[in-house]
Amino acid sequence: MATTGFGAPSVDERDALARKAAKTPGLISFAGGLPDPKLFPTRDLGRALEGALNDNTSEALQYGWPEGSAALREYVARELRARGARVNADGVVMTSGAQQAIALALAMLPRGAAVGVDPESYPGALEIFRAARRVLCDLTEATRGFYVMPSVSNPRGQRLNTAEREALLSRAAKHRGFIIEDDAYEGTWFSGEGSTPLLAEAPERVFQVGTFSKTLCPGLRIGWLVPPPALLRRALQQKQADDLQANSLAQALLVRYLEGERFEHHKRTARQRYRRKARALARSVAARLPELRFRPPGGGFSLWLESDLQLDQKRLLATAIEAKVSFDPGYAFRFRPSGSFAIRLCYSAVAEDDIDEGVRRLARALAACRRKRRG
Amino acid sequence: MATTGFGAPSVDERDALARKAAKTPGLISFAGGLPDPKLFPTRDLGRALEGALNDNTSEALQYGWPEGSAALREYVARELRARGARVNADGVVMTSGAQQAIALALAMLPRGAAVGVDPESYPGALEIFRAARRVLCDLTEATRGFYVMPSVSNPRGQRLNTAEREALLSRAAKHRGFIIEDDAYEGTWFSGEGSTPLLAEAPERVFQVGTFSKTLCPGLRIGWLVPPPALLRRALQQKQADDLQANSLAQALLVRYLEGERFEHHKRTARQRYRRKARALARSVAARLPELRFRPPGGGFSLWLESDLQLDQKRLLATAIEAKVSFDPGYAFRFRPSGSFAIRLCYSAVAEDDIDEGVRRLARALAACRRKRRG
Repeated sequence: MATTGFGAPSVDERDALARKAAKTPGLISFAGGLPDPKLFPTRDLGRALEGALNDNTSEALQYGWPEGSAALREYVARELRARGARVNADGVVMTSGAQQAIALALAMLPRGAAVGVDPESYPGALEIFRAARRVLCDLTEATRGFYVMPSVSNPRGQRLNTAEREALLSRAAKHRGFIIEDDAYEGTWFSGEGSTPLLAEAPERVFQVGTFSKTLCPGLRIGWLVPPPALLRRALQQKQADDLQANSLAQALLVRYLEGERFEHHKRTARQRYRRKARALARSVAARLPELRFRPPGGGFSLWLESDLQLDQKRLLATAIEAKVSFDPGYAFRFRPSGSFAIRLCYSAVAEDDIDEGVRRLARALAACRRKRRG
Repeated sequence: MATTGFGAPSVDERDALARKAAKTPGLISFAGGLPDPKLFPTRDLGRALEGALNDNTSEALQYGWPEGSAALREYVARELRARGARVNADGVVMTSGAQQAIALALAMLPRGAAVGVDPESYPGALEIFRAARRVLCDLTEATRGFYVMPSVSNPRGQRLNTAEREALLSRAAKHRGFIIEDDAYEGTWFSGEGSTPLLAEAPERVFQVGTFSKTLCPGLRIGWLVPPPALLRRALQQKQADDLQANSLAQALLVRYLEGERFEHHKRTARQRYRRKARALARSVAARLPELRFRPPGGGFSLWLESDLQLDQKRLLATAIEAKVSFDPGYAFRFRPSGSFAIRLCYSAVAEDDIDEGVRRLARALAACRRKRRG
């Protein structure tokens, strides 16, 4: 039952379709933003867990402090310092995944401030902002809250360029605003080249968000938040009120797993695998769906496909599921309604051998929808 | 580092003292509401984890649905049905501990409604209500939100009697209000006698909250919420926005651990151990601290001690930590300031052999504070 609430971020018709897809035998799923389960280092994680359970401290099973494991916070701080930020372990709060880190950050944005986002962005973040009744607006507007994925964007798999970074930072500074920097896909950039977090440029106005979900596995639900130092105490209080602490079991496992070089090797292997799959999907789409445009991603888990076709995404999805293939409809990623056609195809969790067959099915579903439209 | 953020629910001086206590070697801690780590069934949990990691579904490591594991929700529903409630698996939302379940329930109470609570209650819940800027009032007031622990109260370890239950239910009905029923300590009632949840009486206005933290282990961070059916969809949306889902690893472990009779055996052993410790602590307090009153608890993890002594609880705690013993000051449990002296002593996680020595140290600290006061 490897499933997801990820590409189906609200309990509605989208969710119903996602659940239908999950139950369809033989369906090839391009939906969900899931990492490849074949990459999960099950044996290494099992050994790490064994060590964590048998270490006499009962740390893996007992309550812990709200900020989380000291060793993990040290790890996160070290990684961020290696990317150019000045941060130490005391500045890091371990969270129940990146999702909670974004929610915590949002709770600390100036009251009532609209949140500027990309025209297409992570649906889970949009749901947080909507649940909190925040107004959403373009990143370029004059506001005091911003949400971006600078290192690897979802759904496009692109990195913010220098001009975009500088424009954002100076807009935030001008309006005394705060930036939620979602680095969830950092570590999936195909070339392995690291990026400087915005946190390095403006620690006083950046909430840096990260997670082990995309690079290791999401079931642990371990992420982190580095809030501006002036807001650290409030972030910790809110974290404690929300759910006391990130789960001890996964934290203890991670502490042991992260010893040595295993994780670096793992990330390298994963990047190569995802790059290969991205290329296979791009080739297949170019050949079989020439009416859909995309920019080749530099990292992440997906292709973002756009078109001038006048097609109902929901109907296409329903037809696709009948043809045993699924994807995430573009409207889930948009904060304002748009008539223009877009879908996200995730290559990440699809077996390489299934990619071309999945695209073939999708092309058939698309053709069927177009015929019906004309007919 | 078996520690807690539990008896120290905000990042303040209380927290500083709790952290100081945790770092003091040889200190006997009556603080924190921690289960006895010696009871953790480490071997059985290890086996369950091994099974969960090696079952080919990658369920333990991948994303899951926001409502949580179907098998766990079925387990929870079955347990509640055995206690007299009409609930099925679809009505249960797995959460990141009881803390998150309370927070979710609060988010669904009528906007702006004050929350009625016992004069002494769980500090973590008070922190949620305060963080959300809710007004707190007595349970007997005319309001639309109520928070209670009917099966086993914290800190007193008592069960609501029939008259109290009926009064609460009719008050809630009269004001079209909602009751958050926190059953966190259910299963620790010494006699093993189950209780009928308020959920059984008024499913349309009760949020039932439960957890595996007190009966099994808190590090898993797995609890649940049964919201009124009309609010289930909203609860799921909010859960997803908050942190997507409860962690898959601990859920997969629990599914396997709960097969068979192990957990029932475990709870029986635990109840006996806690009853023995409660009695040992009660004897010792009666002998060494005759100026402190308490009512013997019927379950739970603690004694609630009151006195007419004019003593500063914070100073007593600081003095006690110097004497290598700690406890939770009473003000943490009260929603309104009170001049009357009270402290909570948890017997749950203290080694039986240390109980009397801990009380001896506390009696010495108390005497020292009283001398200073007179001096």
